[in-house]
Amino acid sequence: MENLQEYILGIGAKAKEASRKLSSLDTNSKNNALLSMAEALKNNALEIIEANKIDLRLGEEKGLNKSLLDRLLINEQRIDAMAEGLRQVSELPDPIGEIITAWKRPNGITIGQKRVPLGVIGIIYEARPNVTVDAAALCLKSGNAVILRGGSEAINTNMAIAKILRNSLISCNLSPDFIQLVEVTDREIVNIMLKLNQYIDVLIPRGGAGLIQTVVKNATVPVIETGVGNCHVFVDSSADLTMAENIIVNGKTQRPAVCNAIETILIHKDAAEEFVPKITSTLNKLGVELRVCEKAKEIIDANNINANVKPATSEDWDREYLDLILAVKVVDCLEEAMEHIYNHGTKHSECIVTNDYKNSQIFLETIDSAAVYVNASTRFTDGFEFGFGAEIGISTQKLHARGPMGLPQLTTIKYIISGSGQIR
Amino acid sequence: MENLQEYILGIGAKAKEASRKLSSLDTNSKNNALLSMAEALKNNALEIIEANKIDLRLGEEKGLNKSLLDRLLINEQRIDAMAEGLRQVSELPDPIGEIITAWKRPNGITIGQKRVPLGVIGIIYEARPNVTVDAAALCLKSGNAVILRGGSEAINTNMAIAKILRNSLISCNLSPDFIQLVEVTDREIVNIMLKLNQYIDVLIPRGGAGLIQTVVKNATVPVIETGVGNCHVFVDSSADLTMAENIIVNGKTQRPAVCNAIETILIHKDAAEEFVPKITSTLNKLGVELRVCEKAKEIIDANNINANVKPATSEDWDREYLDLILAVKVVDCLEEAMEHIYNHGTKHSECIVTNDYKNSQIFLETIDSAAVYVNASTRFTDGFEFGFGAEIGISTQKLHARGPMGLPQLTTIKYIISGSGQIR
Repeated sequence: MENLQEYILGIGAKAKEASRKLSSLDTNSKNNALLSMAEALKNNALEIIEANKIDLRLGEEKGLNKSLLDRLLINEQRIDAMAEGLRQVSELPDPIGEIITAWKRPNGITIGQKRVPLGVIGIIYEARPNVTVDAAALCLKSGNAVILRGGSEAINTNMAIAKILRNSLISCNLSPDFIQLVEVTDREIVNIMLKLNQYIDVLIPRGGAGLIQTVVKNATVPVIETGVGNCHVFVDSSADLTMAENIIVNGKTQRPAVCNAIETILIHKDAAEEFVPKITSTLNKLGVELRVCEKAKEIIDANNINANVKPATSEDWDREYLDLILAVKVVDCLEEAMEHIYNHGTKHSECIVTNDYKNSQIFLETIDSAAVYVNASTRFTDGFEFGFGAEIGISTQKLHARGPMGLPQLTTIKYIISGSGQIR
Repeated sequence: MENLQEYILGIGAKAKEASRKLSSLDTNSKNNALLSMAEALKNNALEIIEANKIDLRLGEEKGLNKSLLDRLLINEQRIDAMAEGLRQVSELPDPIGEIITAWKRPNGITIGQKRVPLGVIGIIYEARPNVTVDAAALCLKSGNAVILRGGSEAINTNMAIAKILRNSLISCNLSPDFIQLVEVTDREIVNIMLKLNQYIDVLIPRGGAGLIQTVVKNATVPVIETGVGNCHVFVDSSADLTMAENIIVNGKTQRPAVCNAIETILIHKDAAEEFVPKITSTLNKLGVELRVCEKAKEIIDANNINANVKPATSEDWDREYLDLILAVKVVDCLEEAMEHIYNHGTKHSECIVTNDYKNSQIFLETIDSAAVYVNASTRFTDGFEFGFGAEIGISTQKLHARGPMGLPQLTTIKYIISGSGQIR
């Protein structure tokens, strides 16, 4: 314990010191470092893959399930994708140094609002080695030193990647401490990180609900909460039902394991007789299990549809399945749909499919989520899809950043004031 | 304890419910309510003053010091000032509903970034009844329900004020629960509030370092840290020494008990021989006690200045005196000054007095504080002085808001997306 404390304090102190240099590093130097990292990842692909094999073998021995092992897997193609990600970040505009606004006061002082880095960002994530590269790139470009604490199942892969990234920094005559990986996998390390206010300016947890809640509940360092998405589609009585079907199929099946996938659909009672059988058949063919309310069950039964359908329990309305499972509820009106979302949503992304102008406006105004859609898939809640370039996560909290977080969301501002001796 | 929990959960639930109505309340209704409150405060001045007399008497019995009793005191003049504050807030632009930016993606969806309220704001503050009115006004105008928990010494005054404000809401046909005061003074209430994530979106502590640290260390609700200011003025070798003197006198003596007052001055060694005696004499006449480094002491002694001067201890560099006391240190160069600020500052406000262009730019770039000044008093770090109108506090953290927080800092954004059936 004493040693863990010392170890992480050492990392914190080095990160803080590094962040002072990094905050005013010019854009070209940052971009060159990113491109050098991209090259180095490709040139050292074998080393990463060898390390990854160890993690995969240990993971199999530990009995990790197939989807976890797949997230852990690194191959040439995935290394290429990581390198491409680095190149893309190098092409994004540098947010740092922008004077967002400036004005002159009646007494003659000028006040400028300048974009500056946050300082030191701690990223706590699961066994996804691509996050090591993504997070390092976005933090570097936004002028922040980063402390990476990835899942222990990926430790060998992460260490290989971090070594390569840090060597690239050294080869560019930059401090390797801009990017630091926590190499000790003891979970106690996380508890210490959560309270490392003197060195870490912001913590961003990336992962499942359990990880995020642990961080939110125990951190004294400010946290940006990301990702848990119990997303809804409401099919209004006036909806184009083919459009509704497309949006629901896309939202549920295109990539079920991500946070902007949908988990519950709400169907206006006037559309239910036609739409429930239609969507049930379609989703059944796509291998989706439905958890349905009583009214939907009645309609399905009346239509003799043989599908993978279970009665929904009250728990189903709060589940983020992240799987080919969808909850279905028939509602009496728009207000009931919005009330359901208010009570069960996670303020991530919700969609109304409607042709009624007034209802579309009420939904946009009333729903209190990071992204509120009319007639478009919730799968667009994503940094790339919004046009931000890469993203570090999707904030579901209201402070600082909401929705997809790109480079500007990794910054803060300071006021710079120029005078000629003014006093109050 | 069980009852306290129930009590505050009840307040939280009512605030959350109220915030849903308040978030889309039109500007005119909010302004009318503010003006009605201003009237009601003046019309019921006697009631407030009577309640305040009870608090003052209890405070005297408890042995509160003079400055605390002064902060607690309410008279006609102060009620007028509170009413005027309400009128000013009614005249500020309504931040809610603004579409900050909007764009169209290649696939045809349009994405708008819309300003919306945070939801429910908890304000935890000391025995300053004016904060009750200020905070309620700013939260109402920015569409947020507010839970006010003021210092127990002001409870009778706060209850009288809150009753008047809530009655004004009722008279305007609005929910009184937009503004709720915690009427139970048991300190345990604060501990429960700090973890009331289901009902409170943001906590803003206003007060001394002890209060703020308690909130930051124990809250699971996101916090905006405010106020502690160990502010510095650096007098460069090229400084106009009369300007430096004016800025220091203003920063220390105009209102010593506030967070943007200065606590330490750093003097370049090349200016020290002339400036140390000058500023020592001036501040001495104004009743300021100096805590000086060895070099400054030597200069003072060599000049036979008879002043209220003590040797600085290492603790003095970290003190926020909030009093007519100033620490003085002679430094070798700009870098030493910036290093001192880095090690001892609280990232609030710092100033360089200089005529050297390069040094002014290095200082603006390097100093990591909410407000960085060249040749102007740090006393300008204030919502009114920045032109924001009223402020709810000065953020010294980096997340969400930094520096003076006006109405826009009490808001967040949501993305509203309109499509015509787009999917990924």
